[in-house]
Amino acid sequence: MDAAGRDRLPTIDDVRDAARRLAGHARRTPLLESAALNDRLGGRLLVKAEPLQLTGSFKFRGAFTRLSRLAPGERARGVVAYSSGNHAQGVAAAARHFGVPATLVMPADAPAVKVAGTRARGAEVVFYDRGTEDREAIGARLQAETGAILVKPYDDPDVISGQGTVGLEVAADLAAAETAADAFLCPCGGGGLVAGCALALAAESPATAVWAVEPAGFDDTRRSLAAGKRLANAPGAASACDALLAPEPGALTFAINRERLAGGLAVTDRDAFAAMRAAFEHFKVVTEPGGAVALAAVLSGGFDTTGRTVVVVLSGGNVDPLAYRAALDDA
Amino acid sequence: MDAAGRDRLPTIDDVRDAARRLAGHARRTPLLESAALNDRLGGRLLVKAEPLQLTGSFKFRGAFTRLSRLAPGERARGVVAYSSGNHAQGVAAAARHFGVPATLVMPADAPAVKVAGTRARGAEVVFYDRGTEDREAIGARLQAETGAILVKPYDDPDVISGQGTVGLEVAADLAAAETAADAFLCPCGGGGLVAGCALALAAESPATAVWAVEPAGFDDTRRSLAAGKRLANAPGAASACDALLAPEPGALTFAINRERLAGGLAVTDRDAFAAMRAAFEHFKVVTEPGGAVALAAVLSGGFDTTGRTVVVVLSGGNVDPLAYRAALDDA
Repeated sequence: MDAAGRDRLPTIDDVRDAARRLAGHARRTPLLESAALNDRLGGRLLVKAEPLQLTGSFKFRGAFTRLSRLAPGERARGVVAYSSGNHAQGVAAAARHFGVPATLVMPADAPAVKVAGTRARGAEVVFYDRGTEDREAIGARLQAETGAILVKPYDDPDVISGQGTVGLEVAADLAAAETAADAFLCPCGGGGLVAGCALALAAESPATAVWAVEPAGFDDTRRSLAAGKRLANAPGAASACDALLAPEPGALTFAINRERLAGGLAVTDRDAFAAMRAAFEHFKVVTEPGGAVALAAVLSGGFDTTGRTVVVVLSGGNVDPLAYRAALDDA
Repeated sequence: MDAAGRDRLPTIDDVRDAARRLAGHARRTPLLESAALNDRLGGRLLVKAEPLQLTGSFKFRGAFTRLSRLAPGERARGVVAYSSGNHAQGVAAAARHFGVPATLVMPADAPAVKVAGTRARGAEVVFYDRGTEDREAIGARLQAETGAILVKPYDDPDVISGQGTVGLEVAADLAAAETAADAFLCPCGGGGLVAGCALALAAESPATAVWAVEPAGFDDTRRSLAAGKRLANAPGAASACDALLAPEPGALTFAINRERLAGGLAVTDRDAFAAMRAAFEHFKVVTEPGGAVALAAVLSGGFDTTGRTVVVVLSGGNVDPLAYRAALDDA
């Protein structure tokens, strides 16, 4: 365990503590439902709408939780993080809230809306080349140079705990509606969101099977779960799901996910675009490709909802207008 | 007053009764906020997201309230309504809930998504030509032929009361956040939503000025408020805001609005498209042109938010993908 306990596995108590920290700061997002879509699926589909979260994705939850635990002396040092854009905006917004200087390392080809959203929240952005440079090395160098605190995107106990509040809210909404979910499907990059939600649901809704959904070519968690050990993605794959391109499962996230998850699923970009269009039509929620993969798993037939109650997380909606238009055309 | 009391002016007690009827049936939609947009405006903007309501617009509230009061014998007769599409879907969904046959009279050029949404809820659709036929006459003929009950789109005390629950929810959310709104801006077609909200806010947030926002060329309520009497729109105007093309203020709605509103504002289609894009970017909520006019009044500079707290209602999000794409391009 490092000095700050950052390789500690979080527990349900940490998730509940995160929920208390986030109360009044994060938005409690709605669980949406469409009668037309239920009719078509022959089951009950409930959609957790995290694009409506502050910063347009669930990432604010983990970043805020992490920064809320910094000591005053740590806050003065500032934070640094690497991210394709959603974690960047979450960190920038949380840093602004706590008055902490923030530097974000982002790929040069990140969606413009994500770069603009990060800068608009007062953070400094440093670009890197996704093909030739190592963002973790750049983050480590900035840390060494400035003394800033690194806020990892997923492999951190506070970040996982914060993301897990999505699962707590879903469980509370299910209980309030006097219903239960057979399955919970969640977009997965490094696995922080699904790990946190798995902790929450194991405590609050233990009969719900939790699944990770990834883009084809980046299904490292699916394959790792099947193999029982962490496997990396093969190099050279491409996907429109820019939020979900982590190279391999996190150490902490996989330690949780291998114990808690029912398995993994993979969907194509085309499936994700069709799901973006369905979210447009049935829920009036803007989603980005990576944010729509869990819905895509259901709508593409990759996960059968017949006669079942299934929750899917829409995890983010930070998408450039041009890319959104293309998805509306494609589906 | 007719036999059923349908020309009775509703009161705040009726709005509160509607809220009780809708509890557990309508969705309690969130009040959203964007730090980036607040920074840009130099004020505080709160957005009531009714595209997330069942059927994709606020219209479900009024339709459900009206149908919830039908006597068993009336339910058996069925209902008929005329609508460009949002009221149609609201009536169809409410009719399905109460097991009432529904016939909807819709313009032949209604957005495909609205026609499909109405049919998907089990209602029969009868088309008319917006240029040459009178939808009220067709509705009256269907009523006479079938004995069905007419569910008016806005000039009805139960419908106004149901729409007013939007205002009650906003007032409750403001109180929970220990804040107050200087102004409340609301899209206006026939005036049912703004009239109901004005009743709610007069009781729960009396210092909030309520404004109706209309499309240019269909600013009958704005001009009628200025003149102190009901004025119709000049023939021949066109607007992309298909939900807001009522010919003149309703008798009941205007009786309320002339007492309660601070005034009216008008926006261009281009302003509405820019607001649709802002809702896409900052709130991740899909809006239709007519649903975005109140936000448009703020963003176009037609209503000054500097140093003020202003609530705008996004009233609906039923828009065809092609039209949405065009709006994303245009802005």
